[in-house]
Amino acid sequence: MIKLYWSPRSRSFSALWLMEETGLPYERVLTDITTGAQKAPEYLKINPMGKVPSLVDGDAALGEAAAICAYVADRYPETKLAPPPTDPRRARYLQWLFFGPGCIEPGLIQIFTKLEVPTSTAAWGSATQVFDVLDAALAKGPWILGEEFTAADIVIGSGLNFAVRMFKMVPPRPSFDAYIARCVARPAFQRAEKIAAG
Amino acid sequence: MIKLYWSPRSRSFSALWLMEETGLPYERVLTDITTGAQKAPEYLKINPMGKVPSLVDGDAALGEAAAICAYVADRYPETKLAPPPTDPRRARYLQWLFFGPGCIEPGLIQIFTKLEVPTSTAAWGSATQVFDVLDAALAKGPWILGEEFTAADIVIGSGLNFAVRMFKMVPPRPSFDAYIARCVARPAFQRAEKIAAG
Ligand SMILES: N[C@@H](CCC(=O)N[C@@H](CS)C(=O)NCC(=O)O)C(=O)O
Ligand SMILES: N[C@@H](CCC(=O)N[C@@H](CS)C(=O)NCC(=O)O)C(=O)O
Repeated sequence: MIKLYWSPRSRSFSALWLMEETGLPYERVLTDITTGAQKAPEYLKINPMGKVPSLVDGDAALGEAAAICAYVADRYPETKLAPPPTDPRRARYLQWLFFGPGCIEPGLIQIFTKLEVPTSTAAWGSATQVFDVLDAALAKGPWILGEEFTAADIVIGSGLNFAVRMFKMVPPRPSFDAYIARCVARPAFQRAEKIAAG
Repeated sequence: MIKLYWSPRSRSFSALWLMEETGLPYERVLTDITTGAQKAPEYLKINPMGKVPSLVDGDAALGEAAAICAYVADRYPETKLAPPPTDPRRARYLQWLFFGPGCIEPGLIQIFTKLEVPTSTAAWGSATQVFDVLDAALAKGPWILGEEFTAADIVIGSGLNFAVRMFKMVPPRPSFDAYIARCVARPAFQRAEKIAAG
């Protein structure tokens, strides 16, 4: 059975939401980061960064929340969370999966630390650019690829939920509010939110 | 035919290396970032961030260098650049693909800007942690998954080549030097380096 290593109130949320969306049986293994459980030698074999979340599926093991989304969606195509490789929507799907850790995350760090980096050098351009691009991408909806909900929505939706709804680091916009409301309305999101509260 | 939008001396390098590894026919479309070509309205339809690289493959279009690696490797399985979804190595493969933009990139920004963020909060921990984890992962070799060269090596190898060999932002280590030397020895790497020089 799939094991998901997680800690309350952490970046584990997206992996919890993912597993709740899949309907697959899985076991949650509490790895409380307030106790240092994520630095135990046995855990470091699963995730060398000593962070949550991590996932173990038989002989497969990995860390990095967005990678976990990519892994599960492709490994279990019956969950219909990823367009297959021959579907042209696969390209944007992957772009948005990588946009989470590659652009939203550093954009939020930039807001948090008031970091100044030239937009042409920064892989995420600037926080303003990141959220303008998301605003345009979400204008049509309902999901980031259009009609179809995918694992990319779990990555992007978790990022916006964190930045806009929970921590108010980013000002609300009509497109963000409507998208976040659609995410929050999903039963799997609500179950994950309850679990993540600890 | 696949079109790769690129600019000399830029993050396009990994996408160039990728395409040279695949042996697939592709057309390079020069998008010179020193002229602002990446902000032209037609280009923004391909890559809403107005950055290079981007890839167009029939109706599929995407930006984000690591996403391009993931896309091509899965879309063209005959290139043997990705373990298939049912292979347990798929998990680490994806972890390392995301580690590039999610951990190496912000780790380098941290070095460049002397940014201070608590390691538990930062998605990449710290620059020290990122390079320690890579050191351990590359100790055995020859590639990041072991015997098999994959698109994850293109992402990780491009990052280390940039950080250690080209810009000396990160001190050399025996594991890095040996790994970078193996990357540089690949004919596809050498062709990409020539192209990327402009
Ligand atoms: N890049 C990682 C970041 C994960 C991460 O930073 N997790 C934090 C909790 S939100 C953590 O485990 N912190 C504990 C620590 O670093 O010791 C991912 O996307 O999964
Ligand atoms: N997250 C992007 C970063 C790409 C990027 O920042 N490219 C730079 C060149 S290295 C660029 O196009 N800069 C021009 C600009 O931002 O106007 C990726 O991984 O592809």
